[in-house]
Amino acid sequence: MDRDLPPAEPARGLSTRMRRGELFSADCPSREVLQHVTSRWGVLVLVALMDGTHRFSDLRRKVAGVSEKMLAQTLKWLESDGFVHRKAYATVPPHVEYTLTSLGVEVGQRVESLADWIEGNLPKVMSARRSRALAAEKTRHGRQAG
Amino acid sequence: MDRDLPPAEPARGLSTRMRRGELFSADCPSREVLQHVTSRWGVLVLVALMDGTHRFSDLRRKVAGVSEKMLAQTLKWLESDGFVHRKAYATVPPHVEYTLTSLGVEVGQRVESLADWIEGNLPKVMSARRSRALAAEKTRHGRQAG
Repeated sequence: MDRDLPPAEPARGLSTRMRRGELFSADCPSREVLQHVTSRWGVLVLVALMDGTHRFSDLRRKVAGVSEKMLAQTLKWLESDGFVHRKAYATVPPHVEYTLTSLGVEVGQRVESLADWIEGNLPKVMSARRSRALAAEKTRHGRQAG
Repeated sequence: MDRDLPPAEPARGLSTRMRRGELFSADCPSREVLQHVTSRWGVLVLVALMDGTHRFSDLRRKVAGVSEKMLAQTLKWLESDGFVHRKAYATVPPHVEYTLTSLGVEVGQRVESLADWIEGNLPKVMSARRSRALAAEKTRHGRQAG
């Protein structure tokens, strides 16, 4: 009896290879890139830049809570990975602008999709937290009663 | 003359609100959830669990480099957000299994898409890094010559 062949396999990405154990290895450079775009501030900077060019001070204002040092470091990472283009104007005081490259727009879309999902589903997450806290509470009471 | 109306706006997600300055505020709880799923190990654990149920020791092996303590902490975060279900069997030694909830599968898909993109585009990122290093080198030499 003939068995159906599986459909042609799509190109294997990171997650597939990770499953095969290739990318869960600590020394793959993709891990470093992943860290840059998913770092505490990397996500927020990418989403902010999806809106267009920003000056350093504008980004600083938008990404509430980021220090000047951490914002500069995050932009440096994203620039070195080819996601962000930095343009400095020789003015006094210096004027520096940051824009996503086409590679940056591509990765930014993925990050934005994740960010959007989280915001859209925040009520569900908060409700899961409450149910869990309640169940833990009940278990504790049950134990005390028993 | 009539002007076409813009298409109906989709529900506004995190990134849209961030742009409007609502979610770049440091105290929005969605920021915490974002941190959990994009943490150093959160990404890798989610991608691993997209493959199905895992025991703690299997996850530990797959996510190379993670300490026992950090893996436990990451799973606790994901469990408290309702992304991971933990099932403990009363055996000796204890047997604990972790599975994505339906909410976890949804967020996992976004994380996986980002992870896949990064792996697929790693050559471009590495090439961007080289070009940039080369350009910096040239600038330095130019300055020395000038």
